Amino acid sequence: MSLAVVGSIAFDSVKTPFGERSRMLGGSAVHFSLAASFFTDVRVVGPVGDDFGDEQYAVLHARGVNTDDIERVEAGKTFFWQGHYEYDMNLAHTDDTQLNVFGDFEPKLSDGSKAVKVLFLANIQPDLQREVREQCTGTRLAGLDSMNLWIDTAKDSLVRTIGGVDLIFMNDAELRQLTEEANLVRAARAVMEMGPRFVIAKQGEYGAALFTRDGFFALPAYPLETVNDPTGAGDSFAGGFLGYLASQESEDDATLRRAMTYGSVLASFNVEEFGTERVQRLTRDEIDARFEEFRQMTALESARA
Amino acid sequence: MSLAVVGSIAFDSVKTPFGERSRMLGGSAVHFSLAASFFTDVRVVGPVGDDFGDEQYAVLHARGVNTDDIERVEAGKTFFWQGHYEYDMNLAHTDDTQLNVFGDFEPKLSDGSKAVKVLFLANIQPDLQREVREQCTGTRLAGLDSMNLWIDTAKDSLVRTIGGVDLIFMNDAELRQLTEEANLVRAARAVMEMGPRFVIAKQGEYGAALFTRDGFFALPAYPLETVNDPTGAGDSFAGGFLGYLASQESEDDATLRRAMTYGSVLASFNVEEFGTERVQRLTRDEIDARFEEFRQMTALESARA
Repeated sequence: MSLAVVGSIAFDSVKTPFGERSRMLGGSAVHFSLAASFFTDVRVVGPVGDDFGDEQYAVLHARGVNTDDIERVEAGKTFFWQGHYEYDMNLAHTDDTQLNVFGDFEPKLSDGSKAVKVLFLANIQPDLQREVREQCTGTRLAGLDSMNLWIDTAKDSLVRTIGGVDLIFMNDAELRQLTEEANLVRAARAVMEMGPRFVIAKQGEYGAALFTRDGFFALPAYPLETVNDPTGAGDSFAGGFLGYLASQESEDDATLRRAMTYGSVLASFNVEEFGTERVQRLTRDEIDARFEEFRQMTALESARA
Repeated sequence: MSLAVVGSIAFDSVKTPFGERSRMLGGSAVHFSLAASFFTDVRVVGPVGDDFGDEQYAVLHARGVNTDDIERVEAGKTFFWQGHYEYDMNLAHTDDTQLNVFGDFEPKLSDGSKAVKVLFLANIQPDLQREVREQCTGTRLAGLDSMNLWIDTAKDSLVRTIGGVDLIFMNDAELRQLTEEANLVRAARAVMEMGPRFVIAKQGEYGAALFTRDGFFALPAYPLETVNDPTGAGDSFAGGFLGYLASQESEDDATLRRAMTYGSVLASFNVEEFGTERVQRLTRDEIDARFEEFRQMTALESARA
C-alpha cells in the first residue's frame, strides 16, 4: 500500500560531541522516507532548490523512494538547518535556519500522491499540513508531527489540522503545552478528544508511548552506548511506524505495538551515525534482528509462570 | 527469607497540587518496609524520638513488619521532612529538614537483623550504610539507594559503600553524576565496575530500567491520571523489588524482571494517595492484578507471529 510524506527536504550542518558534518542530506521528509521505505512504497512531497542534485536524489532512489512530487525550484536554494548538541543529546540547539524555497511552498500533489492510503504530515506550518491533508481524500490513515513553535504561533490552525488526522506524534512537553494538561495520560486523552484515534508520545532517550481510546503501550529506547547524532530520530520513528502500518491490513493492538517497535528500531539505527549515513546502508535483516532484541529486552513472564 | 532495611523513619509534611498532609508517617525505611511486607518478613532498623507512638508502630505491625530494631530515643524527636511539589511532580522541593535523632544515629543491629539474607541500605549517609553492611555477614543480596547530596559531599565513602553491595537504585541524573558519564548505558556499566551486579535506574514518570552484566530490561511507569503524592515512590519500588527477590530462590533474568514489575506496581499504588495511605490498605490480589496489567501493557508479539 502506498504512503506519502510532506515535509522538509534539507541540507543539515550538525555538530555533536562526537563529530560534525556539513550540508548533509536531511529534513523530516527525507528521514521519514528512508525509514518507511523498508516496508512500503513511499512518495515524498516537498520543495528543493537547484542546489539539490543527482547525489541527493540518488540516496532516495537507492531506497526506491518516488521523488516525482519533489518540486525543484530553479534559482532557489534548498532549506538549510544548522545546529549542535551538547552532551545532553535530547536537546537540539539551532544555530541557523534558512527557509529558502520552503518560504513560498504551495503543495500541489500529483494524482499518485493524492491517491495514497497512508499520509504523513511532517512538522511544517499547520496550514500547509491541512492543504495537503485535504488533497488526499482516500486515506485510510493520516498522521502528523508538530512542535512548540506552531503551538505558540498557530495553535488554532494546528488544532484544526489535528482534527483531520488519525494519529499524532509529539513529544511529552508539546502534548502538555498543546492541551494544558500536566499529566500525560490526561494530555493524550485531550488530544483524542480533538479527533485522532492514536497519540504517540515521543520521549527521547526514554523511548515512546502509544495511547489509544482503550489502551496503552510503551517501549524504551534501544540502549545505545553511543548516540552520534539524534537529528531525524523522531521522523525515522514515524517512518518505521507508518511504513509498517501501511504494509498491514489492520490497526489492531498487536499491529500497532509492532509498528511502535519498528519505529523504535529505525530511530535507534538513525542516531548511531550522522544524518542518513546509517539508514542508507541498513538492511531488512538488521531491522528484524533488532526488532527481536526489543522483544526480548521487554519480555515479561507471568507471575504465575 | 528475611529482609532488613536501614533508613529514615520520619514524619512528613507534604503539599501537592492535589492536597496537603501534616506530619504523616513517612521515611524511606517505612515506605520500603510496607512495600516489601507483601512478599517476605521485614525488619526495620532506624531511630525515632519519643514523639513516635503506638499509632505509628501500629501501621508497621499491621503489615507484620518487625520493629525490634527501631531505636526509640527518649527526649529525642523523630526525623522530620517538609516539602512540596508543583505540577511537575518529578521534582520535590524541600522546605524543611530536621535530622533530630538521626543526627546521632549509630546503627546497632540485633542478631536477628544481622542474620538477614537480603539487606537494603536506604538513602542515608554512606558511612552509616557501610557500618550496617559490615554487620550483616550472611547476606545473599545487599542493595543501596543514594542521592546527589552524598555524591557532592561524601563521594569517596559512597564509592566504597557501593563496592560492598550487589545492586544500587539511583535516578538517571545521579548515575550520570556519580560516574561522570553522560550516556546512561555507560554510566550503568561504570557502576558495575565498582562492584554491583545490578543497577536499577529510577526514571520517575518514565518508569525504571535494569542493567545487568549481560542484560537490559526497562518498564514504563503505570499510566496514572492522578498522582497525588510522589513521596516514597522510589523506596516503594525498592521494597517491591527486593521483597519479591527475597521470596525467590534465584536471581535469574526472568525473576529480576518480575521483581522490576512488582517494584513498579508498589510505586504506582504508593503515589495514588498521600504518604502511606494507599499501601496501608493494599491487598496482594490488587498487586497481582496490576502486575498482570503491566504484563499486558508491555506485551509484544513476534514480528513473524
